[in-house]
Amino acid sequence: MIPSSLARSERYARAAWSRLAEPADPVAARLVAQLGAVDALDAVVTGGPAVLDRFQPRLRRLDLERDLELAEKVGARVVCPGDEDWPAGLDDLAAPPLCLWVRGSLALSEICRRSVSVVGARAATAYGESTAAEIAAGVAERGFTVVSGAAFGIDAAAHRGALAVSGRTVAVLAGGVDRPYPAAHTALIARIGQEGALVSEAPPGGAPTKSRFLHRNRLIATMTGGTVVVEAALRSGARHTAARAADHHRVVAAVPGPVTSPCSAGCHDLIRSGVAVLVTDAGEVAEAVGDLGRDLTDPRAGCSRSLDGLDETDMRVVDALTRRPRTADDLAARAGVSAATAAAALGRLNLAGFALRTSGGWRLPREKEVPGA
Amino acid sequence: MIPSSLARSERYARAAWSRLAEPADPVAARLVAQLGAVDALDAVVTGGPAVLDRFQPRLRRLDLERDLELAEKVGARVVCPGDEDWPAGLDDLAAPPLCLWVRGSLALSEICRRSVSVVGARAATAYGESTAAEIAAGVAERGFTVVSGAAFGIDAAAHRGALAVSGRTVAVLAGGVDRPYPAAHTALIARIGQEGALVSEAPPGGAPTKSRFLHRNRLIATMTGGTVVVEAALRSGARHTAARAADHHRVVAAVPGPVTSPCSAGCHDLIRSGVAVLVTDAGEVAEAVGDLGRDLTDPRAGCSRSLDGLDETDMRVVDALTRRPRTADDLAARAGVSAATAAAALGRLNLAGFALRTSGGWRLPREKEVPGA
Repeated sequence: MIPSSLARSERYARAAWSRLAEPADPVAARLVAQLGAVDALDAVVTGGPAVLDRFQPRLRRLDLERDLELAEKVGARVVCPGDEDWPAGLDDLAAPPLCLWVRGSLALSEICRRSVSVVGARAATAYGESTAAEIAAGVAERGFTVVSGAAFGIDAAAHRGALAVSGRTVAVLAGGVDRPYPAAHTALIARIGQEGALVSEAPPGGAPTKSRFLHRNRLIATMTGGTVVVEAALRSGARHTAARAADHHRVVAAVPGPVTSPCSAGCHDLIRSGVAVLVTDAGEVAEAVGDLGRDLTDPRAGCSRSLDGLDETDMRVVDALTRRPRTADDLAARAGVSAATAAAALGRLNLAGFALRTSGGWRLPREKEVPGA
Repeated sequence: MIPSSLARSERYARAAWSRLAEPADPVAARLVAQLGAVDALDAVVTGGPAVLDRFQPRLRRLDLERDLELAEKVGARVVCPGDEDWPAGLDDLAAPPLCLWVRGSLALSEICRRSVSVVGARAATAYGESTAAEIAAGVAERGFTVVSGAAFGIDAAAHRGALAVSGRTVAVLAGGVDRPYPAAHTALIARIGQEGALVSEAPPGGAPTKSRFLHRNRLIATMTGGTVVVEAALRSGARHTAARAADHHRVVAAVPGPVTSPCSAGCHDLIRSGVAVLVTDAGEVAEAVGDLGRDLTDPRAGCSRSLDGLDETDMRVVDALTRRPRTADDLAARAGVSAATAAAALGRLNLAGFALRTSGGWRLPREKEVPGA
């Protein structure tokens, strides 16, 4: 049971609630919102209406002291709504977390202010992983915090991309912050905890269950300014995250890939359906998610082709020129312009280096005859 | 000069005009529209205002009889606005062709009624070429005529894809229909002429000049219901065609590819800027370009996952189940639901084959214990 010295504290009551109620439990959310966490807890302890029965089995096992000890052991703290450290975006949720368990010394609300989620398939391709790492590194270099879920594939590539440029990255876990999952990412998750932050709605030791993964996605979607899906099958958790981001009016972006790749089919579908904007690099992600004016990216430039500046008439005359010299009259007929127009065009083209006058007439210059070539 | 027996004929005057004026020449277009081709020709012959001087150099070389002989030799005919065979879409142009030179026995207007342009980079990748061929074959099988430009890369792949399924395909050439370009596509172009159609605004023997390629694109863009860009660099002829299609309110679609491929950068930019809709296969192209109702494609389906139908409570209880049997009370605590809710959920899950009751309690079924698995 809860030590009485803490029972009056809203903070500890919320920590207890995170053990009693599953993430996004609507009854718990309403009760705590209406009564406050302490009185809501009292209502369960004293046996309230039948709708509260769902909390009884866990109430009997509740041991907040042990949870707090476990948290202290890994340097985790409890962050509650209203705390300076609380990410403001989470308040947009119908059932926001009752509290967050957080590891890492960075100020969570501060680093979420300029942040982007980079999510995608666990069964990603090499193309997807390298693109995720590139994008994460690029946005991290632009001062964005990269938020993801520490899973295999795109998630891990995104975290690694951010860490590679000493950028900030946050992993939002479905299970407890003391319980690295998947186990193969134990070292990666530890590093994120040291250099960035680990966040979970589940109490220490909490299992990463299927339903917690789904609810975890709503945190990733709302604590950031936007979500980028790098690779996703048609049905995937990343699409779920994208849908939550769209529900809450966050920017949703998706990276295209080969149409032959099932791993890109979900991204293409998000773009086709208008949910996501197509992005191809970190600059475009920053522009989509970032601040107007500050994060504008240069439009992609093609190779300049010097002939592009010519008007229709001059282009026709250039087309008519050959390596062999031709008379202005001949060129006028070939180009379909009057003799006077051809003469004027040839003068302009001569100045621009596209036509050469010789004793035998006008011809194309050779490479080395072009000024400045 | 024009044989006098033909001089009164609008058709032959238009054929002559296609020799005198370059494609999309605004003076020729206005003059012919206002006076008719015969009187417009008379105006040039008798020496009209200075703006008509551009036609004089070519008038002196005009030999319509020779042009018609060249056309006859390759089985080409002259198709004029108002002819039954005239593609209606071309009338949307500010300066429509004065006539078309056409090889092939198919009725041009008829086959353009349900048609799509498939265009793209000459320097295409293997991915782009195979995608172009797949899409062209798929839309051809759905009864669309595939229109393209016979160039290297995407164009050729599109024609070949349509021919491979005995579909209809049309090549719109920048030079004369008797002058295969590029030369390496002589056999391909001949086959298109036999099984589909070859179309050009330029008279027989006409050279495929740079400006004619640009103006050719406006025909590809407007004689079809829509244009699909399969691969295109940021600056490319295919983007020019797409822009003309958009100008004339045709459907524009683009195929995505790897963000690392410069050959897909133009497609991504068209999608990002909202000019093109993203398409990944022939079904989506048909839906975008085709008739409402007739060409609806099925939304892409993911693999069905049977657990997806479960509600939140049942999913939580499934999450709580293990291979080892557990009591209903234990499962209620693990799932965060009341004992009564857990019992009801376990009953439902048992019926659905997701939970098994044993002497030791409830557990997950093994693969072979699932009914119908």
